[in-house]
Amino acid sequence: MFGVTVRDHMMIAHSLRGETFGPAQALHGATYVIDATFRRAELDADGIVVDIGRAAEALHAVVSELNYRNLDDEPALAGLNTTTEVLARLIADRLAERVHAGALGDGARGLDGLVVTLNESHVASASYERAL
Amino acid sequence: MFGVTVRDHMMIAHSLRGETFGPAQALHGATYVIDATFRRAELDADGIVVDIGRAAEALHAVVSELNYRNLDDEPALAGLNTTTEVLARLIADRLAERVHAGALGDGARGLDGLVVTLNESHVASASYERAL
Amino acid sequence: MFGVTVRDHMMIAHSLRGETFGPAQALHGATYVIDATFRRAELDADGIVVDIGRAAEALHAVVSELNYRNLDDEPALAGLNTTTEVLARLIADRLAERVHAGALGDGARGLDGLVVTLNESHVASASYERAL
Amino acid sequence: MFGVTVRDHMMIAHSLRGETFGPAQALHGATYVIDATFRRAELDADGIVVDIGRAAEALHAVVSELNYRNLDDEPALAGLNTTTEVLARLIADRLAERVHAGALGDGARGLDGLVVTLNESHVASASYERAL
Amino acid sequence: MFGVTVRDHMMIAHSLRGETFGPAQALHGATYVIDATFRRAELDADGIVVDIGRAAEALHAVVSELNYRNLDDEPALAGLNTTTEVLARLIADRLAERVHAGALGDGARGLDGLVVTLNESHVASASYERAL
Amino acid sequence: MFGVTVRDHMMIAHSLRGETFGPAQALHGATYVIDATFRRAELDADGIVVDIGRAAEALHAVVSELNYRNLDDEPALAGLNTTTEVLARLIADRLAERVHAGALGDGARGLDGLVVTLNESHVASASYERAL
Repeated sequence: MFGVTVRDHMMIAHSLRGETFGPAQALHGATYVIDATFRRAELDADGIVVDIGRAAEALHAVVSELNYRNLDDEPALAGLNTTTEVLARLIADRLAERVHAGALGDGARGLDGLVVTLNESHVASASYERAL
Repeated sequence: MFGVTVRDHMMIAHSLRGETFGPAQALHGATYVIDATFRRAELDADGIVVDIGRAAEALHAVVSELNYRNLDDEPALAGLNTTTEVLARLIADRLAERVHAGALGDGARGLDGLVVTLNESHVASASYERAL
Repeated sequence: MFGVTVRDHMMIAHSLRGETFGPAQALHGATYVIDATFRRAELDADGIVVDIGRAAEALHAVVSELNYRNLDDEPALAGLNTTTEVLARLIADRLAERVHAGALGDGARGLDGLVVTLNESHVASASYERAL
Repeated sequence: MFGVTVRDHMMIAHSLRGETFGPAQALHGATYVIDATFRRAELDADGIVVDIGRAAEALHAVVSELNYRNLDDEPALAGLNTTTEVLARLIADRLAERVHAGALGDGARGLDGLVVTLNESHVASASYERAL
Repeated sequence: MFGVTVRDHMMIAHSLRGETFGPAQALHGATYVIDATFRRAELDADGIVVDIGRAAEALHAVVSELNYRNLDDEPALAGLNTTTEVLARLIADRLAERVHAGALGDGARGLDGLVVTLNESHVASASYERAL
Repeated sequence: MFGVTVRDHMMIAHSLRGETFGPAQALHGATYVIDATFRRAELDADGIVVDIGRAAEALHAVVSELNYRNLDDEPALAGLNTTTEVLARLIADRLAERVHAGALGDGARGLDGLVVTLNESHVASASYERAL
């Protein structure tokens, strides 16, 4: 199995709902340094998993939809508790849509899976892995 | 599959038994920077894998039982060759006990697995993965 | 010259005032991974720059006053444009107050200087250096 | 499942063939910081996955065959498009040969698998995972 | 004293002239992960050292002049031994020209100094510091 | 001013003397990931600060004198409280001796200074800077 990983980041405000979150129930924020790993069993004709430039552009496009926002005010996220885990899944699902829509090239339709990891500090991260 | 990772560290002395270990047969030491990853297939009602604060506390509690010790003198480790691999398993098993005892909350009983990685330098690490 | 560095982090929301800041004029947020370096020309009687445990506690105390907040709503920061540079100076000045008040021990009164670096992502940081 | 990871690096020149690669079709270069992870289900009699010293030596030997070279001129790579993915597989396969030849010790014949990751910058990497 | 650091990277081929360089006399390559730190004694009216977006753009522009090249064939570098140190100075000097030409804004004319660090692997780097 | 940095590491056992050190008064250990930075105002005839290969060898030689040891039992360290700061100075002084003895080449006699940083974990380090 092969994998290719690209990294980007976003800086958002949000609050979390539920007593579990203690002080994080207040409006605060995070820089998420985001790794997206694309996986496939066999390389394509160019000897790659995915065009790394297109992969980076796709991740950047998805991240830009959230960057410099207060996620509590985003209509598209209404009703979501935007935990790091939920954001990892959201970004993975939006990347998957782009793959399926052909934004990463026809070859990328051969991808098998995707892992998105959000590093929220030097001591904590969350990830979500899904098939493509 | 989702994952949440928390990081802590410990600073211990020990020696290793067996010719394989060469100079590491002498009493020496290590800082282990430790990543514990908790995994589950579905998020709980709060939209999380595990309460990250409780996960960090549990890892810190397990690490504190070994931190600032000479592992060669620890009764609980008598007979163990405390390689990085063995310590990764020990910490994973002790975290698993805490999960099963409810220390990470009732929701954490839904966890599927656990990976513990001990980074012993900028060029070497060992990990152990187990089911929960 | 000797230095000792301790690391902590905080997760805050804020907005920046001024056209220079473009999209960062909107309410967003950041994780700041913060390095505080204490400097002195000669070591104290224990052979240290500062008690590293107390240094970490002092940094944690200063960081906790800001962590999980919306800085736009903090009375103590009213009128401040909370850029990364301004926050680096604020944290350095608050650490300096603690040093002068004796919170890091009597030996810490012999410190010569302090550098605070705020890492806001994997590609950007700001720092402030001052005398003590 | 246990894993042990060792890190080394190489600094090579090469060019990539195919319009997909844009400016990377020109002769350029890369530092690859390389992580090799050895995996096995059970530890050997010494309580290890593999002798970490021998693992590091094996990785260094494989890397040295490519280091400080222009890969476009390497007879052994003739016809290969030396993408990061292809190089990850090449290094994994050469490590596997060494494992099978006994270079990592008899115990290493019990290894189950191998992952090689090539970090080409702070924002991109590729990996290849195979059985042993 | 304040500092702001931005990070970018480039992937180049080159060879080094002189017996000192041993195997690096052959054509090989490097990824340089580049940190540019801008320094000034006092913040500007916006509370910043420099517009971090413009600083990143300036670094990217300078890096793009070298990225994906064989430095041995660059007319502008003819006669230069492109060691990591020499490249650090070259990039710092080109950034300084952009600062002086106003590319980072009028406020950036108040900058006091500049440090450029080229990380060539996980175990080696070189830097150059100059006044502005 | 130019700088070149090389990285190595050592894994030692020791204990610290003095109530300040709390639990670190017991025998424990550390991995120190060590950065040695060599500084000079002007490059030599080869366009370098120091032969990076020789610099790495010198650091490795100095580190090897301490690696895999219990520092409490080292005759050469008798009477020293082996704090991270003291070890940083010890390694810097031993590197300086090697520079002065010509081990880094005649050109290295033109070096102006040296900084040694010992990273003892992901959240703490100490450094010592001296002239050459």
